[in-house]
Amino acid sequence: MVNSKLLKQKHIYIGSSALLQFNKILNKNNYKQFIIVCDENTFKHCLPLLIAQCPKLVKANVFEIEPGEVSKSLNIAAQFWQTLVENKIEKDALIINLGGGVVCDLGGFCAAIYKRGIDFMNVPTSLLAMADASVGSKTGIDFEGVKNILGSFYQPKAVFIEPLFLITLPNSEMKNGLTEIVKMALISDSKFWQQLNNPQTSIDEKLIEKAILIKSKIVIKDPYDKGIRQTLNYGHSIGHAIESLTLNTIKPLMHGEAVLIGMIIENHISYQKKILKKEVMNEINHFLVSNFKPACIPKNNLNPILAFLINDKKNKNAKFMFSLLEKIGACKINVEVTTGEIKKALQYYEKLVE
Amino acid sequence: MVNSKLLKQKHIYIGSSALLQFNKILNKNNYKQFIIVCDENTFKHCLPLLIAQCPKLVKANVFEIEPGEVSKSLNIAAQFWQTLVENKIEKDALIINLGGGVVCDLGGFCAAIYKRGIDFMNVPTSLLAMADASVGSKTGIDFEGVKNILGSFYQPKAVFIEPLFLITLPNSEMKNGLTEIVKMALISDSKFWQQLNNPQTSIDEKLIEKAILIKSKIVIKDPYDKGIRQTLNYGHSIGHAIESLTLNTIKPLMHGEAVLIGMIIENHISYQKKILKKEVMNEINHFLVSNFKPACIPKNNLNPILAFLINDKKNKNAKFMFSLLEKIGACKINVEVTTGEIKKALQYYEKLVE
Repeated sequence: MVNSKLLKQKHIYIGSSALLQFNKILNKNNYKQFIIVCDENTFKHCLPLLIAQCPKLVKANVFEIEPGEVSKSLNIAAQFWQTLVENKIEKDALIINLGGGVVCDLGGFCAAIYKRGIDFMNVPTSLLAMADASVGSKTGIDFEGVKNILGSFYQPKAVFIEPLFLITLPNSEMKNGLTEIVKMALISDSKFWQQLNNPQTSIDEKLIEKAILIKSKIVIKDPYDKGIRQTLNYGHSIGHAIESLTLNTIKPLMHGEAVLIGMIIENHISYQKKILKKEVMNEINHFLVSNFKPACIPKNNLNPILAFLINDKKNKNAKFMFSLLEKIGACKINVEVTTGEIKKALQYYEKLVE
Repeated sequence: MVNSKLLKQKHIYIGSSALLQFNKILNKNNYKQFIIVCDENTFKHCLPLLIAQCPKLVKANVFEIEPGEVSKSLNIAAQFWQTLVENKIEKDALIINLGGGVVCDLGGFCAAIYKRGIDFMNVPTSLLAMADASVGSKTGIDFEGVKNILGSFYQPKAVFIEPLFLITLPNSEMKNGLTEIVKMALISDSKFWQQLNNPQTSIDEKLIEKAILIKSKIVIKDPYDKGIRQTLNYGHSIGHAIESLTLNTIKPLMHGEAVLIGMIIENHISYQKKILKKEVMNEINHFLVSNFKPACIPKNNLNPILAFLINDKKNKNAKFMFSLLEKIGACKINVEVTTGEIKKALQYYEKLVE
């Protein structure tokens, strides 16, 4: 039971008793005020269950945001801080993030900054947030069209993962989360990749636990993103750029959709650089295309993508530094990539999905 | 030379060779971009010397703010972040804060949050910033009229204290800084207090070094403000409230002026609670009044002061928790104070300075 021990250390509770655990912890702790951050959907579909299981929270202040990336803004953060001041929220208060990645990122960031840090806990409700966003202590908001460019490293006091919340999720949201889970497998666990390839595998708490364990182990080794943690950026250099590109369009891509495209394109870059074998690239990309049906990306996209890449936190010395797959289960960080390679990979992608 | 060792560990350089050291460090390090934060005064009076001594900085971007507390706002922080994005500032850039407490607090906060933290160094130019604000890793801005309510703990990579910059300072600024130095003596060093009582003592680098050492030792023991560091809040509960009260008036009090009043009032509270002897209170308050000539505070001030105290970061469970002097050189934290005691102490103060 090494796994459970690690999750326990990090105060991550998964399964149908997670909210019961939350209730116990609330009764044991001395928090004097509670603020729940949620969006319109989780307010409707998840808050009643949370309060039913944790009666103490009936007196919580609720801060409700519009669903979607648009709420991860400095403007909404300022509104939240204003609410905290108006409600005279003190240092011994607890912020509870009930929602997907947007709610967890925004609520965690606001908690990190208010009075130089007050406690927060995450109750992720999307598959993506359960498997990825609620672990790892990165919090943040978007600014000037750049994803997560303002933020801080700040640890939730606990995370409660109740798979019941997944039932209300649309299919697109499930795919969104599954993409990050596939990413975890690709960068560090070939057995897990095989398991995901098996059509019999179901999306349950075991799967989520596995993904969290992979991420937790990486984050423990490198909390401040100086080394191995950068393997988690696989698919995200191109992915973030494409996500940012569509941020202010009528139909913005979901994070997972963008990372999916990012992984496929970056696999081709890795192949061009002779880091990844052609047949392995084909195997992975075939799986991703046929199972996830990635979207087309706007034509003439090289320059805007490069512009966003320049603002990418992962770059150094104005060079493009990517995390690229070496094989299934292993990822290489700090690989310098040229404009030409990106261009070729984009052309490859366009053909692949046309 | 225990002292020098501690300062070296914390990368604090004091004296006429401090900027030479800065130049050496700049040449040794691999920073690719530089951004200097300054205000109108330090732009005019200090930036030329800094660039003359550190030629690498001639290519730095300069972000200039209006002098004074009004610039420690979310609005100015957002403008600064916008400048960073527009100038494509990456993770391997260095922010240099050239100014007083406002510049150091704002610049440090923006550095802490941009791309989840980029490096910054402080070149404090006021006595207050040299002795206090540039050490201790607290960064922050004001919000909704509450001082430092948004912020984070984030360490400068180095601090360079060049006493030459003090020459251009007005007398009021020197008094402003000296108040915090007196505070350091009162909370932890009776010998230093005697030294400050001696009219022969001059304000030089030795004095600044002593104050920094006191603060550094306290901060090392308790970086996150959970215990002994709270002794530094002596004078600040009432002080911050009064400072906030005058923040949006025609003549806002300087930080040191407000803390001066705070110390006098809190000494009376300490005396009321039988923590501080009457004769010691009289000795300290007499010294403070005759040497620093504290300002009068607005009449009928109890309710507004209480309103600000409620938002004070140092309170717990809606109780007023103060750090109060026990004797010269010792301070007690987490002392519960009542509205009645605050009221009496305010009346005492009004009589004292009328």
